Parts: sequence; structure tokens; C-alpha cells
Amino acid sequence: MNAYLLTIGDEILIGQIIDTNSAWMSRQLNLAGFTVIGKSSVGDTAAAIIDGLKQAMSQADIVILTGGLGPTKDDITKKTLAEFFGSDMAMHQETFDRIAAYFEKIKKPLPPTLGEHQASIPVKADVLLNKVGTAPGMWFEEKGKVVVSLPGVPFEMEYLMSAEVIPRLKKRFPGRPIVHRTLQTVGEGESNIAKRIENFENALPSHIKLAYLPSLGQVRLRLTGIWPNEEVQVDSEAILQKELDTKMEELAALLPDIVFGKEDDSLQRVLGNILLEKGFQFGTAESCTGGYVAHLMTSIPGASAYYPGSVVTYSYELKTKLLGVKSETLQEFGAVSEETVVEMAQGAINTLGVDISLAISGIAGPDGGLPDKPVGTVWMAVSNGKQTITALHVFGRDRSKNIQLSGIYGLNLVRKFLLEH
Amino acid sequence: MNAYLLTIGDEILIGQIIDTNSAWMSRQLNLAGFTVIGKSSVGDTAAAIIDGLKQAMSQADIVILTGGLGPTKDDITKKTLAEFFGSDMAMHQETFDRIAAYFEKIKKPLPPTLGEHQASIPVKADVLLNKVGTAPGMWFEEKGKVVVSLPGVPFEMEYLMSAEVIPRLKKRFPGRPIVHRTLQTVGEGESNIAKRIENFENALPSHIKLAYLPSLGQVRLRLTGIWPNEEVQVDSEAILQKELDTKMEELAALLPDIVFGKEDDSLQRVLGNILLEKGFQFGTAESCTGGYVAHLMTSIPGASAYYPGSVVTYSYELKTKLLGVKSETLQEFGAVSEETVVEMAQGAINTLGVDISLAISGIAGPDGGLPDKPVGTVWMAVSNGKQTITALHVFGRDRSKNIQLSGIYGLNLVRKFLLEH
Repeated sequence: MNAYLLTIGDEILIGQIIDTNSAWMSRQLNLAGFTVIGKSSVGDTAAAIIDGLKQAMSQADIVILTGGLGPTKDDITKKTLAEFFGSDMAMHQETFDRIAAYFEKIKKPLPPTLGEHQASIPVKADVLLNKVGTAPGMWFEEKGKVVVSLPGVPFEMEYLMSAEVIPRLKKRFPGRPIVHRTLQTVGEGESNIAKRIENFENALPSHIKLAYLPSLGQVRLRLTGIWPNEEVQVDSEAILQKELDTKMEELAALLPDIVFGKEDDSLQRVLGNILLEKGFQFGTAESCTGGYVAHLMTSIPGASAYYPGSVVTYSYELKTKLLGVKSETLQEFGAVSEETVVEMAQGAINTLGVDISLAISGIAGPDGGLPDKPVGTVWMAVSNGKQTITALHVFGRDRSKNIQLSGIYGLNLVRKFLLEH
Repeated sequence: MNAYLLTIGDEILIGQIIDTNSAWMSRQLNLAGFTVIGKSSVGDTAAAIIDGLKQAMSQADIVILTGGLGPTKDDITKKTLAEFFGSDMAMHQETFDRIAAYFEKIKKPLPPTLGEHQASIPVKADVLLNKVGTAPGMWFEEKGKVVVSLPGVPFEMEYLMSAEVIPRLKKRFPGRPIVHRTLQTVGEGESNIAKRIENFENALPSHIKLAYLPSLGQVRLRLTGIWPNEEVQVDSEAILQKELDTKMEELAALLPDIVFGKEDDSLQRVLGNILLEKGFQFGTAESCTGGYVAHLMTSIPGASAYYPGSVVTYSYELKTKLLGVKSETLQEFGAVSEETVVEMAQGAINTLGVDISLAISGIAGPDGGLPDKPVGTVWMAVSNGKQTITALHVFGRDRSKNIQLSGIYGLNLVRKFLLEH
């Protein structure tokens, strides 16, 4: 089935906000087996909304509108939809009660007319109860087409899509079961991965597809299975799930060095869990990453249980003073060298009193490159005080990317060290 | 004049990439005096492109297409435009020569057919020379309407918009001069600022408008002036610029405590420049921000000239060991207290050997709140060893926002301290 997305709001047309909603909605619709054939944005006027709606309904069976349902705005969307579908408005009591209860809970007076305004809904609409905000979603049907209107606030839209719209669409347009499984990898590019798993990919049955979803330093591998037969039984989805789980295990076994997690795992969360499990304290000594690794680690709630702290030593002096790196090492090999990161890692264990440390030193750029050490050269070391491993990377010329890639590759080096030690 | 944006590519419709191009283009067109009345995205097929184009041309005088011009893709956009405008294709020699010269420069063989393919252009198009990539832009005119096609790679699109499209549009649709000026503020909300500058705003002449552009912890104030008379002279734009400069000075004088810069300034760059100017070394002692402040400071190239390093002390032990915070202080007042951040700031000066330090300690959340110190409570201190100032903030419940706001407010506290000491 085809879907069309229509976003409403001048703030998108003047470029004040970037429309992240429609990419999120497209992914969710795709995962559920619906094809988004187009999307457009129109301004906050009845004429523009009706034009956009007609255009969308002429192309797709499902139209999803977002925006224009806020409490402080002149609520043009709701009025326009009522007019378009020839519907009266009526108070939706459950929505009104929810809003009143919410203001009672936060001990603020209900602003005059807010409840009445937000709970007034075209009678032809099915109400999609918004449990995370005040503006409900609306579901209209006409001549076999579905038109859904949702608030534009991202987490309210996401709640309503997940809890209401996708389940209802699946019921309204039943199709074959679709199942997705995702593996998270780090440290190898798309084309290298493709070479390594060529045989696996070629041997996949035609109802299972593999997608490569790359981001900086990481590639997600997503398997999508569609039930292969016309006939769908009660246990078809469970059978398909089992089949994909088996394929996922096969795939993970082919890439043990780069697979770090599944579905929505992040590297810093996976690493935190390993540290918790092993009962290890971890600390970092950063030069070129300048605190980025510490920031990644402490972005996870509860990180204080395994991450007591970190030092950022940009200067030679602090490398020596805080980490005990020998002046001779810095003089002879330079700050960006295997010798220096090994001493930094050792120093971090002593200074921070941790079990495991990561040290990173490199040339983030854009300046500071040397003939034998171009911008993007980064050395890193992981140590437990007895064993130390090192790695050298030569990234590119972009300072921000070099910092981010160093952080991601550094955390992955720690993860690999912990799996072996 | 009205403009319509049309993005081409399945990767947008499946939600694989977020369309940041159209927000950027909308802002630039708005700044140049053009109104974007709608935007839409279509898939990589000739039918979808032609439908989208007809729809766009029926609504606006200017249509700008992006995407579908890559060298590795089946170049459906160019062929479709040639067909739509009834134009033959021909080789554009300057484009071909540029591509050949580029591959010679990077010492790689020109891939077969790439030059011919990229340099083949519909003869009815004016070529917009792409000096930062291989796919040129194209400018078509028909029945008074302008249709421009640009590559989708953001920095190529941005180059062509700035260097070619905006200047040509201004010439093709001459209007009254428009001038913009932006002030950057930090640490006060939109509504408070509005109250403080109410008289200024009310006294603005009708041809100058003020816009509030908020982001986390910061608000940009943009003045837009449009030449007030029908008659435009050679020096009209210069006169308008002078008028706006004067207004900007008036506005900045009303908000000396929160204005930190102009146009595209960032807080960390402005702070870096002040430190360089004063010849001061600066260091940070972070608890709840966990390295985020260090990351902000070191995101600026050349930061090593004034930022030798930083410590992240999440644990009580490291606060004592690395910063000399007294155990009694931690016991009596807790890690999140004025007493502790004052000792952390003092300790940072000694440990890091810097002239100025910033210390931050707070409860980032989502857990860890206390009855008298809810999640979001953050203490910060700035010291030069002799004088120390402190600030208390109570932000919200979101961990990521608390970390970011603490960093931004912390850097601003340093900036204010430096202006007075």
C-alpha cells in the first residue's frame, strides 16, 4: 500500500526547523510494509492544506498529516479537516478529562479554553488518544482512503505512530507478515563488509533481504523477511521470526570482530554493560579527542558505577604531570606515537585508579600535519596495567569527523580488549 | 517572488537520510527576499519527477530541484529535464575539462564515461559551473518561470546556491534591497528578552523587523531591513546596512550581559578569542558534564594555544585526589554544592597550571535527585585563583539537555568573568 506524508507549518517553509519527522515516519512505515511515494510541506493556510491534501489523496491510499495541532496556534488544521470532510465538531470528553487531569497533576490551573479547544474534534474522526500531550490524533476514512492527522511535536507524533497509527494501518490493510532484525557493526566500511559476507548474502532466500545502513564509523546490517506464501497462518510471523533469528546468528558469526550489538544498542552502552558485568573501573586519557570519549561514556545514565573520571591532556606538560609520560618519550617519538599512548594508558591506570584505560593521541586537524604523520593520524592504546594493545588509524582531513571516529574506534578497541582479557 | 523546492531521491522517501538541504535553501531564499510556498519530495522515476515539476510550476515562479545528479546513479533527472523542456543534450566542454583536471590533480584515472556523462547537459540549460564537485547545476527558463536543478550533496548544493543561484535570482527578479544582521545571546529565554527590549522593538520603523531564533540555551536576534521606497538607488543597500548597524548597536547595548557575538559566532570560539587576546590559559574540572565542556572547547582548531587540558572527576575519590577537594567538604555539603565547586575550581588551577578555571558539578539525571536538590540542579564556579564567582542553575529532567545547558551556561560564566577581570 502507498502512503503520502504532508507536513503543515510555516516554520518548515522558512527553514526555521528541519523536518526530522518525515524521515522517522518513512522508516516506520517502510518497516511495516507500506511504501511512501511522496511527501510535501505546505503553509498554515486552509487553501494550502486543502490543495496539499487533494494532491496527496490523488496519489496514495494513506495520507498522514503532521503539524498545525498545537494549543497556542490558531488551529487551522482541525477546522480545515472538518470542512474538507463535511463534519461538525464536538467535544471529546475523554480527551478533555485527560487534559484537566494533567493540569491537576502538575498543580497548574487549566488555561481558559485550552481544554475545550484541544478536545473539540470533528465528529467524523476516530480519535487517537494522545497519552503524552494535549492534542489528539485523528483518523478519517473516505472512499477507501485513510487520512490521519497528528501533532507535529516529535515525541507526540512518535508515540501516536507507534501506539495507534501503525497497528491500525496493519489491521486496516492486512498484508503478509514482515520481520526485521538489525546487527550493529563498528570499524569496517560497507564495501569490505559486503565482500566478507558475499556468500551469505548470495545464499539468502528470495524472501529475505539484507540492507546496509552506514553512519560515521559504523554500519548497521538489517535483515528484512517477508512471509513467502499467499497463505498466512496464525504462526506465520513466529516462524518468520525464528528464521530471521537463525540468519542473524549466522551473520554475526561471520563478523565476530566488528559486531558489537543488536537493534538499538550503542557502543558506549554495550561497553558499560561489559564493564558492569566484569566489575571493572574504566578511565580515559585523551589528547586529540579532547573530552569527546568522556562525553560519550557519561552520556549513559549510571555511568558513574564504572567510570570514575578522565583526564584530557592537550599539552606536553600535562601529559607528563598528570600521566607520567616521560619527557624523553615525547621528545624522541612525539605526542602522536605508539610509545606516548602506551605511557598515557599506563599513567591513566595509576592516576585514575582504574582497572582498564584507553589513551588516544592524534592530529585532529585541520593543521598540524607532518610529512610522516598527516592530519588524521591517530594512535590509541588500551591497557589493564599488565597487557597493553595499540592501534594506529589514519582518518581524513575533517577535524570533527577525526574526533568522532577516534572516539568510536577507541571505545571499540576497549570492547575487544575486554572480550579477550 | 514565490519559490518551490523539489527534492528527488528514494533515499529521502524511505527515510534513510534526513532532508537538511531544503531547510538550508529555505533560509537562504528567505534572506534574499524570496518566499518558499511549498516543498515536496519525489522518487527516482521520470513520471514522479515530471508530476512534481508540473505541480511546482503551477504554484511558483521559481522551482529549485535537488538530487538525482550523482555520477554513480542512473541520471534520471537530467534526462527527464531534457525531455520536459524538449531539449537535446550536448557536451559542455568546460565541465568536462574541470572533471579531467580534477582527476589529474588527485592522480587517479578518469573513470570511463564519467566525464562524458557528467558533462552532457541539455542545450536549453544555462550551466551553473560546479567548482566543488563533478555534477553541474542547470538553469532553465520557460514562460517566465525559472527551473533550477542542483546536485543533492549538501556542500555542492550550498556552493551553487551561494555562488550562482541566489545572485542570478536577485538579478532576474530584482526587488528592493534586503539586509540582515544577527546578534547571538546566551542564558536568557525568548520571553524574558522580549520584555527587556519591548521599547526598542516597538520603536522600530516599519521596514525593519526583529526575529527571535531560539536554540538550546541561546537565542539569536535577527534584524531584517527592507529598503522602504519604491525607488532604489545605487547606494540604497549601503544606507540600509548603516541603518541596521546602528540598530544592532542599540540592541546590543540593551543586553550587555547576554550578547556574546554576531552572525555565526559560537560561544567557544568567542571565548577562545578572548583567552588568546588576554594571553590566559584555561582549564576545566567537570563532574556532571562529563567531558562535554572539554569537547566544546577542543572542537575549535588551535584550542591547544589556550586550553592545555581538563579533568573529569565523576567520583568523590578523584575530586579529592586530582583536585584536592576536602573530604569534609564532600561529606558535609555533598558533591553538588557551592563549597565543592569552589574547591574544584581552585584545584583545577593548581592541577592544570592554568590562569582561569571552570568547575561544574550537578545532577544530570534521570536519577539521583534529592529532596533539596532535584534532577537538573547544577553548581558552577569560575576562578582565577584570587577571585571566584559561582552560579546555581536548576534545569529540567532530561539528561542530555542538562549536560548541554550546563556546558553552555558554564562557558558563558567564564566569558563574563573574563570581561570583568
